[in-house]
Amino acid sequence: MISTIEWKNGKVMMLDQSILPLEVKYVECTDYRKVAEGIKKLWIRGAPAIGIAAAMGIALGAQDIKAATMDDFLRKLEPVMDEILATRPTAVNIRWAVERIKKFLAAHRAESIEKIKQLLIGESQSILEEDIEINKSIGRWGAQFVKDGDTILTHCNAGSLATGGYGTATAPMLMAAKEQGKKIQVIADETRPVLQGARLTSWELMQAGIPVTLITDNTAGALMKKGMIDLAIVGTDRTTRNGDVANKIGTYTVAVMCREHGIPFYVAAPLSSIDFTMASGDLIPIEERHADEVTSIWGHRVAPEGVNVINLAFDVTPAKYVTSLFTEKGAFKPQDIKKLLREDVDLESIRLRPL
Amino acid sequence: MISTIEWKNGKVMMLDQSILPLEVKYVECTDYRKVAEGIKKLWIRGAPAIGIAAAMGIALGAQDIKAATMDDFLRKLEPVMDEILATRPTAVNIRWAVERIKKFLAAHRAESIEKIKQLLIGESQSILEEDIEINKSIGRWGAQFVKDGDTILTHCNAGSLATGGYGTATAPMLMAAKEQGKKIQVIADETRPVLQGARLTSWELMQAGIPVTLITDNTAGALMKKGMIDLAIVGTDRTTRNGDVANKIGTYTVAVMCREHGIPFYVAAPLSSIDFTMASGDLIPIEERHADEVTSIWGHRVAPEGVNVINLAFDVTPAKYVTSLFTEKGAFKPQDIKKLLREDVDLESIRLRPL
Repeated sequence: MISTIEWKNGKVMMLDQSILPLEVKYVECTDYRKVAEGIKKLWIRGAPAIGIAAAMGIALGAQDIKAATMDDFLRKLEPVMDEILATRPTAVNIRWAVERIKKFLAAHRAESIEKIKQLLIGESQSILEEDIEINKSIGRWGAQFVKDGDTILTHCNAGSLATGGYGTATAPMLMAAKEQGKKIQVIADETRPVLQGARLTSWELMQAGIPVTLITDNTAGALMKKGMIDLAIVGTDRTTRNGDVANKIGTYTVAVMCREHGIPFYVAAPLSSIDFTMASGDLIPIEERHADEVTSIWGHRVAPEGVNVINLAFDVTPAKYVTSLFTEKGAFKPQDIKKLLREDVDLESIRLRPL
Repeated sequence: MISTIEWKNGKVMMLDQSILPLEVKYVECTDYRKVAEGIKKLWIRGAPAIGIAAAMGIALGAQDIKAATMDDFLRKLEPVMDEILATRPTAVNIRWAVERIKKFLAAHRAESIEKIKQLLIGESQSILEEDIEINKSIGRWGAQFVKDGDTILTHCNAGSLATGGYGTATAPMLMAAKEQGKKIQVIADETRPVLQGARLTSWELMQAGIPVTLITDNTAGALMKKGMIDLAIVGTDRTTRNGDVANKIGTYTVAVMCREHGIPFYVAAPLSSIDFTMASGDLIPIEERHADEVTSIWGHRVAPEGVNVINLAFDVTPAKYVTSLFTEKGAFKPQDIKKLLREDVDLESIRLRPL
């Protein structure tokens, strides 16, 4: 499996995803500023992956600090954390990682400076490993719904590249193929405008040895009609309490087309992506992105100057189109997700079983 | 309105669509070989438009022939027609245009050579004008279904550029806006992989002064869900006797999404595009096009080397998703199309009326 980011011999090795799939290049970060640059310039992307990068960046920055006292050390670590936070100010996972490191530091104030430097490396490793474990769990629960011989449609990239490893939507594919020995193949939507499916998903599945076919987003419906797709698995940016799923633009269309053809539509959703505070997907503000993503492709203008553009970053798929959500605690019907809030819930009683 | 091709001062003026929308350049063809080159190199595309170009090319070739007798003239015109035919050997409209010119020549053998040269110019003009009249009729029938204030979704390019003028899918838009003074706007799918919507449809509607917004194909569903689309009008490559519609890949998805949201889905179908010999769309062989269209955009590789691709040129939308077909004889339900075969049919009794 491709490594997106790792701590190796005192350095952070980061795969530069911005030049994939044409070049596979790891950036060797010996300075936390290089890690910050990588987050900023989208060498690394995907919510879990940038959280991991943030933690590793802070750990890397800590190594170079020369301080006589713990107070001095912590004071000198502040600008490192600020710089990491400033890379992508709205990224929830970076903020989460920084908060986690701060709590960790507060809990280990009694240690020596040399010891805390080591512990920070360990903590950033833990964040990576926990993410991988969550994805493996999602993968094992989800893989139960993948049958031998299945063709799986996916949209955008919710793969290894976006996480510490295994990905979310790709984890059930990897587990079905690698752990369970099921013969599967994947159809990857190219996912306009940013083409994550073409550039990243198809590449990483090829690396993992899973047969993958790339299509334009326009083609999925025709393949469903021909009976060539057995199920769809996608990721989610945010899932609300009622089971509505916000994900990359085009996901809603995939879901509607699946229902029209009687094809199960699954969403791989780590519990961290479920926003229990939000009642429904209608409440999620939809980010509009720059028109350039639509009107130019790699600097080549493809549309008239001055044309009006609507470029929505994601759309919301209502719960009624979602067959099941794959989480690290099991596969659940979207309407049962809210029950996970209750501490007394018997998970076994609401887990969805494969037919 | 933009002129795609016209006869002007003894020359054929052809808009080079291959460089649109970045450059607007008319190629001045003083030799029939230039017209043939234009068809071959896709300076001109769209079934009706290349039929018109073929006829004008033959007329242009005829002007330069020096012949003592009609037999000699006709013999010297043969290689001109062969060269035009060879530009795109599978194009039905080129074949149709050549056959029409041949019949025309047979019917006018008694004329002088100088006269027949003039008549050929007139005949190619007639083909252009008849196409425009058909499109205007489609436009007037279709425009009845467009209400003041409507937002119309379209897919691919079935516009002026693909025809002699007015287009098929765009004709109801132009008639509603220009003849009937209705305030409308159009949302144009960019239409991957070849981006006809981004490059051509949005450009020609801007030229015509109709407000147009460009979106990725992934975005249409989200806009429908937000109530931002009132109706869809698309063109057709071929419609079968039962009302099934073959059109650019992605059209089927648009149709399904329209039905899911209760949005009328209209198809502009000149009678020449209806294949009464074919019982259903399932019988239409679907052309697969080269993977390069998906994996490279303007020479820039966007997908891994060696990735498998399925690139279907078009898909088939079953009649049940089609609200109405706009033809030059009126708007009809898809199930009534086959009745047009009967000579005794009372068109008025099967014409669809706007609500």
